[in-house]
Amino acid sequence: MIVPRLIERKRDGGRLSGDEIRELIQAYAGGHIPDYQIAALLMAIYFKGLDREEMNALMEAMLESGKRLDFSRLPLPRVDKHSTGGVGDKTSLILAPVIASLGVAVPMMSGRGLGHTGGTLDKLESIPGFRTSLSLAEAESQVARIGCAMISQTDEIVPADRKIYALRDATGTVEVIPLIASSIMSKKISESLTGLVIDIKRGSGSFLPKLDDELEVSQAMIDLGARHGVPVVALLTAMDRPLGEACGNALEVVEAIDVLKGGGPVDLTEVALALGAEMLVLATRATSLDAAREMMRESIASGAALAKFEEIIAAQGGDKDVVRDPARLPRARHETTYLAKRSGIVQSVDPRTIGYGIIALGGGRTTMEDTIDPSVGFVVSAKPGLRVEKGQTLARIYARNKEGLVAGCSVVDEAIVIGDSAVEALPLISHRVTARGVEELRTTS
Amino acid sequence: MIVPRLIERKRDGGRLSGDEIRELIQAYAGGHIPDYQIAALLMAIYFKGLDREEMNALMEAMLESGKRLDFSRLPLPRVDKHSTGGVGDKTSLILAPVIASLGVAVPMMSGRGLGHTGGTLDKLESIPGFRTSLSLAEAESQVARIGCAMISQTDEIVPADRKIYALRDATGTVEVIPLIASSIMSKKISESLTGLVIDIKRGSGSFLPKLDDELEVSQAMIDLGARHGVPVVALLTAMDRPLGEACGNALEVVEAIDVLKGGGPVDLTEVALALGAEMLVLATRATSLDAAREMMRESIASGAALAKFEEIIAAQGGDKDVVRDPARLPRARHETTYLAKRSGIVQSVDPRTIGYGIIALGGGRTTMEDTIDPSVGFVVSAKPGLRVEKGQTLARIYARNKEGLVAGCSVVDEAIVIGDSAVEALPLISHRVTARGVEELRTTS
Repeated sequence: MIVPRLIERKRDGGRLSGDEIRELIQAYAGGHIPDYQIAALLMAIYFKGLDREEMNALMEAMLESGKRLDFSRLPLPRVDKHSTGGVGDKTSLILAPVIASLGVAVPMMSGRGLGHTGGTLDKLESIPGFRTSLSLAEAESQVARIGCAMISQTDEIVPADRKIYALRDATGTVEVIPLIASSIMSKKISESLTGLVIDIKRGSGSFLPKLDDELEVSQAMIDLGARHGVPVVALLTAMDRPLGEACGNALEVVEAIDVLKGGGPVDLTEVALALGAEMLVLATRATSLDAAREMMRESIASGAALAKFEEIIAAQGGDKDVVRDPARLPRARHETTYLAKRSGIVQSVDPRTIGYGIIALGGGRTTMEDTIDPSVGFVVSAKPGLRVEKGQTLARIYARNKEGLVAGCSVVDEAIVIGDSAVEALPLISHRVTARGVEELRTTS
Repeated sequence: MIVPRLIERKRDGGRLSGDEIRELIQAYAGGHIPDYQIAALLMAIYFKGLDREEMNALMEAMLESGKRLDFSRLPLPRVDKHSTGGVGDKTSLILAPVIASLGVAVPMMSGRGLGHTGGTLDKLESIPGFRTSLSLAEAESQVARIGCAMISQTDEIVPADRKIYALRDATGTVEVIPLIASSIMSKKISESLTGLVIDIKRGSGSFLPKLDDELEVSQAMIDLGARHGVPVVALLTAMDRPLGEACGNALEVVEAIDVLKGGGPVDLTEVALALGAEMLVLATRATSLDAAREMMRESIASGAALAKFEEIIAAQGGDKDVVRDPARLPRARHETTYLAKRSGIVQSVDPRTIGYGIIALGGGRTTMEDTIDPSVGFVVSAKPGLRVEKGQTLARIYARNKEGLVAGCSVVDEAIVIGDSAVEALPLISHRVTARGVEELRTTS
């Protein structure tokens, strides 16, 4: 295998064989190919793509580099939900306990904040004591015992993906559809799932802002899943504004608990129910999406979902009492309200501005070594289309000090645009993609 | 400077500022940016290009990474000739002594064989004792003393270019016009020239087989030269067949000496005279190309050129007697002739096949660490368009052993195609490109 010749072939629009891809990834994971050759190849793939066979070979090669969760003795269906990343998206914190409370195993492997987006692991770790770095054996036994584990990608799981992901982050090759699809699916297939729901974020706050790209990455993941016996359903959801109101790690845990108690923002609840309904149908626990929604509402109403969240927190070493008493979560020492400077209609709430604002307040990372302050962030009650009066509260800001409050106010001031007329926002859930094709949905935004 | 953001900007078709490019190259040369980020950037440049300002900034940044030859006290015009690389191209060995014999300084910095092409340094080193690794001070004083030095790129000259060149070779980013142009011109401008002639090879044996690319790279180099006070003229010459007959290091030295003695193949002599005439006009030693050709013919006829070659060889520690007695050069122990298998017209002589054939016989490298056998190679008398009879000698093969002769015969057999009719070959010299524009030339092929 002469690596520069393979790079040139991809650069010129040619195909790599499955054997070539396997050999390449194996040699790279083993440290026998330098980073710079893979970096050049990744950039060539950015421009020339990978076909489905190449993408599958890449995913399989990454899978072969590590171990998988073993649920061969677990008689339950196993589903997970993955999101392509957004701001204010705490649906995983809601779905894991709701779905597990309904007799479906949820081996959920999540990530940390990336760019302007938040990460489920960072949110969970705002719960005092919560440990996300479980070993495979610990995760397997916890899923068998209580139906759910919420874990980080360990060194054992697809190490080749970890290595390639870090390289992509450093070389401007993050937003590459075949690399996104094979990276996500290698991790998800290593969870030994029986079904997977993917939340593809749309709009200015997403990593892939073009609809064609979102549909393409959905179909690529559905194809990869199908080749490995994992049915996949993708929902395209709005990320042209934050999801829900809370944006910031501990603040989002509070809002997720609100939803598990039957409250919380309407948009967040709707997206969580829509994704959860797909999970239950894939798990064959419900025969229709409507029936599935009803089961989830009952789980929430009965307190079963909330109890399951307590159980998960306790199993992973966290302070389960935060569920009954959210004041036990880290709380920012300084708070203030942001008031509308004029009357009018909210035209937009930019999620990137809010997301980078959280980082500026100390609630996110600029390098992987940064430690974060889980208490800071925003609760933005303004939504696009809302008619507001001058002086009305549009957001609350939570910061470590007074300088943070000032900075936070100008973040909100930049993020929220008020005008005289409404500007069209994306539908909350616009498309449903399955192996059978693309459905355009009609929902209220 | 956040390197991934710069990579992304270039990837998306944006521009890098001069300051950004300078900072990037300085940091890379200093070891502060990893190879993998530059590799990704180079591949993005392959797809998105560099404009003239970016190209110039890259070239200047590479120049700033090292030292230049200092001819501030030398009252002579200084010209060099550069070729983009071919098979059988020994014009440098002819031009350096001819031009230096006419009172023009020739500080000639050359390379080694690359891919299927030969390198001037390898050819010179087939002369026993010849030393090409002169220091800058040695080269300066030799040029002042005898008008010419034929040297390799030292560690002092554009070290950033050396580092980037090695990375390009390993990452499928060799054939990138702005990188080719800035790399060549950084080395040539570091020679402190007053004029430069570039031989852009065309056809199947060249690195840039498309005419548009050849014209573009010519114009890019002319532009870079003009920005630094170095007028550049480019000639586009045929590399759809070897130049001259000898292909292989010592064999090519013999053929160059033949030309310096007034003999040698017609095509080689014609290309050497055309390039040399441009050099003499750029050096203002001749007022017209015709007058320049006449001066060169006289230098050869009088023996001045040959004497200058002896002087250069002696100055660089070589055995100058090879000029009078070429049998002193390394000679292969085994030789054989290749005879035409049928009567007909030679349709093509593929230079890549011949070039890789030299490597297969041990006369070139597959890794930079390989040592080469200067004695092996081919003398191919067949040229496209030649009518041949079955059994006629078309080539001689020079090898280290009998297996080499067998391998060499099949190389020639693959390279030479004989058919019933003639196939059009490229004109020997097809275009002349100067700062004033492109002239299409009419020459006999």
